[in-house]
Amino acid sequence: MPGVGPKSAQRIAFHLLKGTPEDSARLASAVQDLLTSIRLCRVCNSVTDGELCTHCRDPGRSEQIICVVEEPHNLIAVERTRDFRGRYHVLHGSLSPLQGIGPDELKLAGLLERVRTGGVQEIILATSPTVEGEATAVYLAKVLKPLGVRVTRIAMGVPVGADLEWADEVTMAKALEGRREY
Amino acid sequence: MPGVGPKSAQRIAFHLLKGTPEDSARLASAVQDLLTSIRLCRVCNSVTDGELCTHCRDPGRSEQIICVVEEPHNLIAVERTRDFRGRYHVLHGSLSPLQGIGPDELKLAGLLERVRTGGVQEIILATSPTVEGEATAVYLAKVLKPLGVRVTRIAMGVPVGADLEWADEVTMAKALEGRREY
Repeated sequence: MPGVGPKSAQRIAFHLLKGTPEDSARLASAVQDLLTSIRLCRVCNSVTDGELCTHCRDPGRSEQIICVVEEPHNLIAVERTRDFRGRYHVLHGSLSPLQGIGPDELKLAGLLERVRTGGVQEIILATSPTVEGEATAVYLAKVLKPLGVRVTRIAMGVPVGADLEWADEVTMAKALEGRREY
Repeated sequence: MPGVGPKSAQRIAFHLLKGTPEDSARLASAVQDLLTSIRLCRVCNSVTDGELCTHCRDPGRSEQIICVVEEPHNLIAVERTRDFRGRYHVLHGSLSPLQGIGPDELKLAGLLERVRTGGVQEIILATSPTVEGEATAVYLAKVLKPLGVRVTRIAMGVPVGADLEWADEVTMAKALEGRREY
């Protein structure tokens, strides 16, 4: 499992051995429930324990703006800003021809359906600023724009709080290219 | 000296002791020359060994666009992009009221002079994305805009190549705010 090597695994095993059988039973049942009770939201493909996720159920969120991310944990990164009050769409991957991941392997149909049924005014492409994320964003922009929706991409640039010295040259070039007028 | 603690200093001293007196003499003379031969460029305040720095001497660079940075090493970060073919201006600091650094402590007069004498169409504010750098950029925009020049700020956002997960919330918020249309 990610972050758990042989030593950590052994430590966890001995930690459980020191506890009561009830503790182990609770962990076992939590792991069991994970795959039986957690599923993907019918609308946005985010993880949820119901039919719809909390974001899709929230009436305070605007239906007019959808933020598209690659994975459920990216959604959490956007949520942490506390700035975004629209809806989400999780692709569960990014285009990667080398790994055989094309548009058919991504959860795209639901997004196109949501745009086609109307009411959506803007799609923010918040895929990762990597080669795959960028390729996915370009592809999505190509299929979404003909549907008459505004398509935007999150800004790439220097991260806030750091010295310019630490920015790599590609990021610095993006920061220069994406400069905005005062 | 930055990056040289007692252990490194001792290692360097013993390394010099192993060498010839000529090696030490060359290092001594290089250190000596540093402060006698290196000075600030008359136009942009960047470090140089002549009257003008290489960027101000270069006829291939546009006079119409000036990139403003805090320190000479920030200029190197912008140069590494190989994307910028304009001129520079080094402030040698950033506004920091708590440390008693106001506009008078920065090398500003030369910049205003360059804008006033005409020919400059855009000033790119490439001060650091920190509190001080941002305050400096806001101040500069206020004094430069009335001179009729276009004032822009480098983009803040997610650094290229990283997973969104690693972006802190302020950076992510800036990336959302600064999103651009496809």
